[in-house]
Amino acid sequence: MDVREIPVQELNVEEFISEQVEAIRQAVPEGLAVNALSGGVDSSVVTLLGHRALGERLKTYFIENGLMREGEPQHIVDVFAKLGVPVEIVDARSEFFAALKGVTDPELKRDKGITQVFYKDVFGKLVRECGAKLLLQGTNYTDVEETVAGVKRQHNILEQLGIDTRQAYGYKVLEPILQLRKPAVRQVGEALGLPEEIFARPPFPGPALAARVIGEVTPERVALVRAATAIVEAELADCGAFQYLAILHEDRVTGLRDGKRDFGHQIEVRCWDSTDAVTGSPTDLPFALLRGIADRIVAEVPGVVSVTYNITTKPPSCIEAV
Amino acid sequence: MDVREIPVQELNVEEFISEQVEAIRQAVPEGLAVNALSGGVDSSVVTLLGHRALGERLKTYFIENGLMREGEPQHIVDVFAKLGVPVEIVDARSEFFAALKGVTDPELKRDKGITQVFYKDVFGKLVRECGAKLLLQGTNYTDVEETVAGVKRQHNILEQLGIDTRQAYGYKVLEPILQLRKPAVRQVGEALGLPEEIFARPPFPGPALAARVIGEVTPERVALVRAATAIVEAELADCGAFQYLAILHEDRVTGLRDGKRDFGHQIEVRCWDSTDAVTGSPTDLPFALLRGIADRIVAEVPGVVSVTYNITTKPPSCIEAV
Repeated sequence: MDVREIPVQELNVEEFISEQVEAIRQAVPEGLAVNALSGGVDSSVVTLLGHRALGERLKTYFIENGLMREGEPQHIVDVFAKLGVPVEIVDARSEFFAALKGVTDPELKRDKGITQVFYKDVFGKLVRECGAKLLLQGTNYTDVEETVAGVKRQHNILEQLGIDTRQAYGYKVLEPILQLRKPAVRQVGEALGLPEEIFARPPFPGPALAARVIGEVTPERVALVRAATAIVEAELADCGAFQYLAILHEDRVTGLRDGKRDFGHQIEVRCWDSTDAVTGSPTDLPFALLRGIADRIVAEVPGVVSVTYNITTKPPSCIEAV
Repeated sequence: MDVREIPVQELNVEEFISEQVEAIRQAVPEGLAVNALSGGVDSSVVTLLGHRALGERLKTYFIENGLMREGEPQHIVDVFAKLGVPVEIVDARSEFFAALKGVTDPELKRDKGITQVFYKDVFGKLVRECGAKLLLQGTNYTDVEETVAGVKRQHNILEQLGIDTRQAYGYKVLEPILQLRKPAVRQVGEALGLPEEIFARPPFPGPALAARVIGEVTPERVALVRAATAIVEAELADCGAFQYLAILHEDRVTGLRDGKRDFGHQIEVRCWDSTDAVTGSPTDLPFALLRGIADRIVAEVPGVVSVTYNITTKPPSCIEAV
């Protein structure tokens, strides 16, 4: 299956929305469709397209994996409630932390800890049990490029969900924003009535804050990186960068607290200039701003004695550490 | 024993040198004195004071612990040869790396891996066997302040060297620069004829590059931080900062090399504004300079995919990571 990109300059937003809404209606003339909303731009746009097409026939879940930003699950539910879209929070924190216990290898963390629990155990179970015949998925054009086995993608998604594609004959997956990159997705989101806070949101990784904890992901360690993330996002909200984030290191470094040696945590701040996440370079932030972020983090995040700023390009760095 | 500081503005350099030279001569009217030269300002100044007082009666050792900067042992010997001072290199690399094998705790690394091997096994043996009756030691006023058990210092040094202070009655320790802080030591070094490269040298930690490797200190890992250190020192030589350094993290981060994921090393750069090392703040370096350092490190140091710059003050950070 060849996927043709619709570049942002060729996008007719209203026409695109009408076509996708119509395609969803045709795919599920009766009964339920289902999707997972993470609060990112992609899944938010897909949720609004699905709701416009199907109304209450779309069942939208927000999986609370314990790895989201400060206050995120309820905040997203509130945003969508204002748009008239019901979203159900599913508390899966214990499943995620159980799967992540003792896992330090980054590939295992992403693949087993996150993908498997999300698709098979949690969301897959909801999909299988809710009686839907259509799954809406927020795959975008950059995801297609990054998936080597792109042509097998839809089949893979159903398998990941634990749906036997022979038995579940007729089960459909739609990926309404498959031909769009992020800037185009943002335009569609704005036209659909998403608040700017959501459609202009910096990218956030699939494994959420688990991608920003080096070493074992525990509730306590996620709490540290969540607090640092809140500070970094507040301080850099207006900086105009593509993406900014905080990472908790596993390394401990020597610090001083109240005149005594204190073997403490280190937080790494990254802020990227990029258009497509394929390449990137560190943002030349004012030094006083960086110093202010470091001061807030060591003052407000327990046990942190050291803060760094990443100065590497992608490649050879990646955007995220895990 | 109360130690009175001589502040740099009250220092009469020539008078100070004459007094210390005379004190050394009186302490050892015949026979040998011994000292260890690390190449830092303190031990370099003490070596020149001792040589001026005793000439060939001073036996100076440079302990090659495998943890020094690129090319350092031979370079220091050459510098002192030009000044007419013979220095003997003692190859103790195997002793140091054997003691550091498997040690990851920073306190253990400093105390057992470095202090014990240096004092008891290597330098202590040289002192006991060379027949000297006087040890010259480069302790300065900041060291005194930082040593809680300051009054027991000299006794401790002899014990650390494995010298039984009851049997070795009459064995003396002299600390010629005990009343001086770093800026005063530098002035004395300049007056004694040290090249600027040495008397203006940024501080370097006692445990050398072992203080800049988080996790186990192996010859391979020291080689990585040594290469990064050479780049940082070359790029920041003219920046006017108090101290600048490179740290090898134990954490691995995700990177990209030739389009493939590459789980690589991270180097942290620190550059401090400080007058006395008691407090410090990160230097506001031009962003292009930082970016250039990062580019060189990922290009020239094998396996490094990520470089950060520390933006924390001391406290709560320390100057060094270990």
